[in-house]
Amino acid sequence: MTRTVRDRLGDVRRTFHRYPEPGWREFYTTSLLVDELEAIDARSEEAGTGGIDEIVVGPEAMDPDERMAVPNDDDLETWFDRARERGARQDVLEATEGGYTGVVARVRRGDGPSIGLRVDIDGLFVEEASDDDHEPAVEGFRSEHEGLMHACGHDAHMTIGLATLEAVLESDFDGTFTVFFQPAEEEAGGGKPMADGPYAEGLEYLLAVHVGLDHPTGKVVAGIVKPLAMSHIDATIRGRSAHAGKAPNEGHNAIQAMATAVQNAYGIPRHSGGMTRVNVGRVEAGTASNIIAERADVVAEVRGETTALMEYVKGELRRTFESAAAMHGCDLEFDVVSESPRADSDDELVDLVYDVAGETDGVDDTVRTADFGASEDATFLMRRVQDEGGLASYLIVGTDHPDSHHTPHFDVDERSLEIAVDVLVESVRRLEVERP
Amino acid sequence: MTRTVRDRLGDVRRTFHRYPEPGWREFYTTSLLVDELEAIDARSEEAGTGGIDEIVVGPEAMDPDERMAVPNDDDLETWFDRARERGARQDVLEATEGGYTGVVARVRRGDGPSIGLRVDIDGLFVEEASDDDHEPAVEGFRSEHEGLMHACGHDAHMTIGLATLEAVLESDFDGTFTVFFQPAEEEAGGGKPMADGPYAEGLEYLLAVHVGLDHPTGKVVAGIVKPLAMSHIDATIRGRSAHAGKAPNEGHNAIQAMATAVQNAYGIPRHSGGMTRVNVGRVEAGTASNIIAERADVVAEVRGETTALMEYVKGELRRTFESAAAMHGCDLEFDVVSESPRADSDDELVDLVYDVAGETDGVDDTVRTADFGASEDATFLMRRVQDEGGLASYLIVGTDHPDSHHTPHFDVDERSLEIAVDVLVESVRRLEVERP
Amino acid sequence: MTRTVRDRLGDVRRTFHRYPEPGWREFYTTSLLVDELEAIDARSEEAGTGGIDEIVVGPEAMDPDERMAVPNDDDLETWFDRARERGARQDVLEATEGGYTGVVARVRRGDGPSIGLRVDIDGLFVEEASDDDHEPAVEGFRSEHEGLMHACGHDAHMTIGLATLEAVLESDFDGTFTVFFQPAEEEAGGGKPMADGPYAEGLEYLLAVHVGLDHPTGKVVAGIVKPLAMSHIDATIRGRSAHAGKAPNEGHNAIQAMATAVQNAYGIPRHSGGMTRVNVGRVEAGTASNIIAERADVVAEVRGETTALMEYVKGELRRTFESAAAMHGCDLEFDVVSESPRADSDDELVDLVYDVAGETDGVDDTVRTADFGASEDATFLMRRVQDEGGLASYLIVGTDHPDSHHTPHFDVDERSLEIAVDVLVESVRRLEVERP
Amino acid sequence: MTRTVRDRLGDVRRTFHRYPEPGWREFYTTSLLVDELEAIDARSEEAGTGGIDEIVVGPEAMDPDERMAVPNDDDLETWFDRARERGARQDVLEATEGGYTGVVARVRRGDGPSIGLRVDIDGLFVEEASDDDHEPAVEGFRSEHEGLMHACGHDAHMTIGLATLEAVLESDFDGTFTVFFQPAEEEAGGGKPMADGPYAEGLEYLLAVHVGLDHPTGKVVAGIVKPLAMSHIDATIRGRSAHAGKAPNEGHNAIQAMATAVQNAYGIPRHSGGMTRVNVGRVEAGTASNIIAERADVVAEVRGETTALMEYVKGELRRTFESAAAMHGCDLEFDVVSESPRADSDDELVDLVYDVAGETDGVDDTVRTADFGASEDATFLMRRVQDEGGLASYLIVGTDHPDSHHTPHFDVDERSLEIAVDVLVESVRRLEVERP
Repeated sequence: MTRTVRDRLGDVRRTFHRYPEPGWREFYTTSLLVDELEAIDARSEEAGTGGIDEIVVGPEAMDPDERMAVPNDDDLETWFDRARERGARQDVLEATEGGYTGVVARVRRGDGPSIGLRVDIDGLFVEEASDDDHEPAVEGFRSEHEGLMHACGHDAHMTIGLATLEAVLESDFDGTFTVFFQPAEEEAGGGKPMADGPYAEGLEYLLAVHVGLDHPTGKVVAGIVKPLAMSHIDATIRGRSAHAGKAPNEGHNAIQAMATAVQNAYGIPRHSGGMTRVNVGRVEAGTASNIIAERADVVAEVRGETTALMEYVKGELRRTFESAAAMHGCDLEFDVVSESPRADSDDELVDLVYDVAGETDGVDDTVRTADFGASEDATFLMRRVQDEGGLASYLIVGTDHPDSHHTPHFDVDERSLEIAVDVLVESVRRLEVERP
Repeated sequence: MTRTVRDRLGDVRRTFHRYPEPGWREFYTTSLLVDELEAIDARSEEAGTGGIDEIVVGPEAMDPDERMAVPNDDDLETWFDRARERGARQDVLEATEGGYTGVVARVRRGDGPSIGLRVDIDGLFVEEASDDDHEPAVEGFRSEHEGLMHACGHDAHMTIGLATLEAVLESDFDGTFTVFFQPAEEEAGGGKPMADGPYAEGLEYLLAVHVGLDHPTGKVVAGIVKPLAMSHIDATIRGRSAHAGKAPNEGHNAIQAMATAVQNAYGIPRHSGGMTRVNVGRVEAGTASNIIAERADVVAEVRGETTALMEYVKGELRRTFESAAAMHGCDLEFDVVSESPRADSDDELVDLVYDVAGETDGVDDTVRTADFGASEDATFLMRRVQDEGGLASYLIVGTDHPDSHHTPHFDVDERSLEIAVDVLVESVRRLEVERP
Repeated sequence: MTRTVRDRLGDVRRTFHRYPEPGWREFYTTSLLVDELEAIDARSEEAGTGGIDEIVVGPEAMDPDERMAVPNDDDLETWFDRARERGARQDVLEATEGGYTGVVARVRRGDGPSIGLRVDIDGLFVEEASDDDHEPAVEGFRSEHEGLMHACGHDAHMTIGLATLEAVLESDFDGTFTVFFQPAEEEAGGGKPMADGPYAEGLEYLLAVHVGLDHPTGKVVAGIVKPLAMSHIDATIRGRSAHAGKAPNEGHNAIQAMATAVQNAYGIPRHSGGMTRVNVGRVEAGTASNIIAERADVVAEVRGETTALMEYVKGELRRTFESAAAMHGCDLEFDVVSESPRADSDDELVDLVYDVAGETDGVDDTVRTADFGASEDATFLMRRVQDEGGLASYLIVGTDHPDSHHTPHFDVDERSLEIAVDVLVESVRRLEVERP
Repeated sequence: MTRTVRDRLGDVRRTFHRYPEPGWREFYTTSLLVDELEAIDARSEEAGTGGIDEIVVGPEAMDPDERMAVPNDDDLETWFDRARERGARQDVLEATEGGYTGVVARVRRGDGPSIGLRVDIDGLFVEEASDDDHEPAVEGFRSEHEGLMHACGHDAHMTIGLATLEAVLESDFDGTFTVFFQPAEEEAGGGKPMADGPYAEGLEYLLAVHVGLDHPTGKVVAGIVKPLAMSHIDATIRGRSAHAGKAPNEGHNAIQAMATAVQNAYGIPRHSGGMTRVNVGRVEAGTASNIIAERADVVAEVRGETTALMEYVKGELRRTFESAAAMHGCDLEFDVVSESPRADSDDELVDLVYDVAGETDGVDDTVRTADFGASEDATFLMRRVQDEGGLASYLIVGTDHPDSHHTPHFDVDERSLEIAVDVLVESVRRLEVERP
């Protein structure tokens, strides 16, 4: 019988860290999660604490029609094959094939409140540092997927989710506790299908958690406010190829159109109504040096302090791309791949988490709320709960991290894992008791 | 015993057409060429005409240190494996491994002049049309390599080269006749190593040939002038990644730098001294929508009516990229991958070809010279010959082509193949006799 | 004897409205101010309330070495001549010649606190609307200076300053009360010399006031916070001219460099630390269509939520311009013409004004603080007072305005003038009494 | 009685040099021309050689409805007033008011052929050098109009035109000889109205002359070929102003649109059909640093080796500007201000001039034709003559010039003036005799 997740927090996290997978392609990650969940279940059954009631993988865990930012079949297949080669469970592979990754795990006991916890599971297209300044490289748990990295702490989040679930199981918790291991957060693709799925129904309280975000180990933010609304966009500019030497005038240059669009995208005016963001994060265009480029593919995103501000930037971006394409005689496809709204943490829940954090070992700095400054598709789940009359809070558990999120030297301080579990477990307990 | 190449012009060309390979990766193409050359040799031996004296494949056919635009090992290997799977000859694979494609075939007889013929063999990164308007698709010889196409007529060139060689063999030619099946023309990578190789030494006359170039079937241009000097450039812009939502200011955005560079590259001033060209043909940059791009790879080329004009544009392009990188706090690598000079056809040779063409069946329009308007690394061979006191001409054999070179619907009129062979064989004969 | 300013609020404001003058060129405006101040003085003497102790015009009213954004001599002279032709007072013309506009008026009585009030006096380069939707046009007090307009309410500010001064004079105020009629606010040129001048010394309290800013008549904001730090920049790009047809390559195109700089200026990344702004507001470049432009003059500004954020954008802007100039072989001058820091209203003073406003007739909505969202060089005076241990607040008196500040249809609701005077006079009284 | 123009070539040219005036504003220049023409007439009458038959100034000298690139009234008036202040003749001022500058002078004798000579008279917006390397500055005949300069040799052209007329008058010429002193060449505004005017009718031969163009003193080019077709464009982008700090999103930024248009204008593809040119020569946009620019005025030109190529670039430019305006929510006006076609020198006339030049003192290098490489609205007159069955040639008389045309250090070698007069006078004589 393995030790509890709580006793192996660092190890569990490091295992996840070694196998980052991009959104909707977390086949092996899902398999690892199910392994751990089944082990928890077994220990719980062994201990007579009743076990996990439901471990749900695949389309049943979500509203499969609401998936966003799903990659193409080739891409899915590549990662699927890789997971199989690495030894992913056959049952998980079958359930997730086609990109239905993620897990929902539920404990049902008595008549207490229905409480949810949401953590995310996907990695990022960042090549992890391999130098001696980077602990995962030194300690031997650097990413084994070149070009991919858990550079946002989702490895920690999964670990926290598992340990919290196990601790709740071990406790005398009375109620329903559901942990959402959500896929495809980075592309804001997994939040909506989870929020629209069957397990989000009837939740009275929702907690979501993130580590770090520039807050050090020992600090807890009880609830974030002002997450940015966000939209991911795929744009394709189609022109006409021509021989660059003999007849450049016969081409409609998709690369010129793209460059014009990019330059002006970053020039979309700031807005009096609040913070906005725009980024063109990926460009692939043209074929060879002597051919006027026929096609340019662009991946972009816009964000806003409110959903309306996000819509403003998106509208400007669309016009910018349309005009740039028209300028060079090109056609444009402009697709919104995924989107997430804004949702704020509820005061009552923030108060409860704030009190809990203040009394937790290892916490030396507690603040009620902080601006998030980025986007999160946990907002779909938060809004679902709030719309049904429930309360939600998205808390930050500080962790010392040597470099920014989404960069090659990002790392988490594993001491923060225990703090997070303590705060969450105690918050769940109090929610059951106090029902704020 | 197979029929002569001349009797199978269309079939031979169609076989080459089905298997386009990019520069320095023409492993299967080289294998096909050697097959045909050996068959010619066999027929010649059978007929008692002496056979081909040398069929040279691999580093010995060129100056291997002068290869330009050689792709990386992975890329070479991919095409190498593909060629092997398709059934390429083991001896050719061994000789060309690492990217030493192409063939030189030589006939040596008596004391007559040393005459060369140069044809090129590589395909283009153009996805061939598959609709009913495209004869190769209708007739079943469309490219079997997705994304690659013989969209510039090199399939025809190889066929012409083989048939001319066989016809010279069959004739009472007295002298040395060398056919250069040159790889990597499109990237201007193969011309220099062939020109600097052992078989270019001592050539008294050089003929090079191209089909089409907007001239219809039945027309022959005896010699091109003003081919553009050209340089291929690979540029890499390296910045710093950052989270696009949380800290865009911490990034050094390689995509912004790239867009600035591209916009200004196309704005490099026209030159009073003559025609110039610039093109950014390929861009790949960044990773994901929410990450400030850390890197952008750009493939570009510059051309000029003279070598000096090409150098002017190249210098401006370099400064443009350097400044764009500096503007966004990025570093720049700017590498010249390959280059070709300008060389013009010699009058004496033009006159001879002009006279020959005027008397050739199927030719109804003969012009002495025409501007080339593009670049060609045949100029390396032409210059080598001219520098050693010889004469060179680059002739165009018209062919009806439904769409421009380098586009998906490009095709050649196979009737032009015979015309080309007739003009070349008779030109070789007269060169031997007249020694202009 | 004329009626008090308070009895003529609308008329006085309309007179100022008709003669907008740009920064450091408010010669006629200063003359009108002195006329009104002398009339106030005369009425006060007549009423036995002691008169104004000092009316100071010219270099003595400020630190003349700290003037920023001073226009060139020709420009100064043009407006100087216009003011003289319009009938400006000879003494004012003599004192202000060379661009030393503005007035300081001081009342000294007893030992009470030293209190300052700052209003600004310059107009904007906006062409005032002349249609029937614009009350100044309908009522006949539209700007008589074509292309200039009081489109920011400074006409109202001067009127409020005069009326407040007269009301304080009429009251039993005990202390020193100084009104700063500051020139050149729009270019942030006049705040620093006034703050560094002799009359800013020893102020214990400072009030500054602005009308409107999207707040309606009846609303008062007791103190603004977060005014943006700002910097005005003049940049000149110098290239080399050439004949655009014959030898474009011989030019170093200042217009291309300018366009590159502008495009990238607007693309300077948003900052995680808070709000930033950048604008290129004016460009003049080149001479004729057939000449490659030799020179481009650009007027720009940057702002930041903090002084550090402003410095960030300024640094990025400088690098952007330097790189754009270098890209096109041009030289760059990049001059900071003027700058204003950030300063926030002090809580104690905000509380006092808030209480006063809540009790003022016509005020139906009082808020403590609001973000300013723009820049103001009143911050120099505020910082001076705060640095010397005093308190400052910058209050907003709402006014219905049909269109945004700085646009052709901007107008103020004259009912707000009385509200402003009431709030200020009562605030001054309480400051004297309560000394917070 | 003054000496003949021929005896004062340098002085006359220097006088013109001191007073450069822009197109359609050559009021003082026209006055100087009339003074000289009347003096020639007087000397001729005195010498009994018959005098000038017609000296025509104003609308009668042209088709006034065909004037292009006419500046606005204010601009015309400014230069008109300046000319009057400088002492321009009252009769000339009356005839040219409103911008009808230029002169036609005609000699009618006997039944000989009708021969025309065309010279141009306007200056350029170039600020003349004032340093010791610039002879006009050293010798005291630098431009007295700041910012304007005879930087293209039109001062020399006028002088040559006058001297040639006087020499023809003095000779036994039999026929009609007409000299067109054409205004507004630089903007291609004066060629069409002169060509469509009454004095262009029935010309059998036309000579036009230009000095320099990179040919040294002593060289003559008998006729230019391939002048570029050209079009001048005025574009106005209209957006919406807003406060750059408070509400940048409310603006439609004409400066961003302009920068986008400029960047892409220079990126219009080169054309396989031949040489093209594009230039944005002047930009004026926006008002102040804190206002989003409401308007941008742009002056541009396009050229092409043929009229069709020019139309290609013009079409691309229009689309570029339209798209850039649309991208930023702006409106566009795009006006073709003036245009000139291509016209080539006729062989028969080139031969005659070539022969004459070869026999002229001081000429040591004669070439038949040269590419022009720039544009010229003399082509209107040339085409008119050619369309009516006559012959035209545009000759170049070399002159050493220290720097390029259209630059501050441009100057002419006055020794070339006499050469030009000799070639022209003798060509006129031969035309009369030989009637080619």
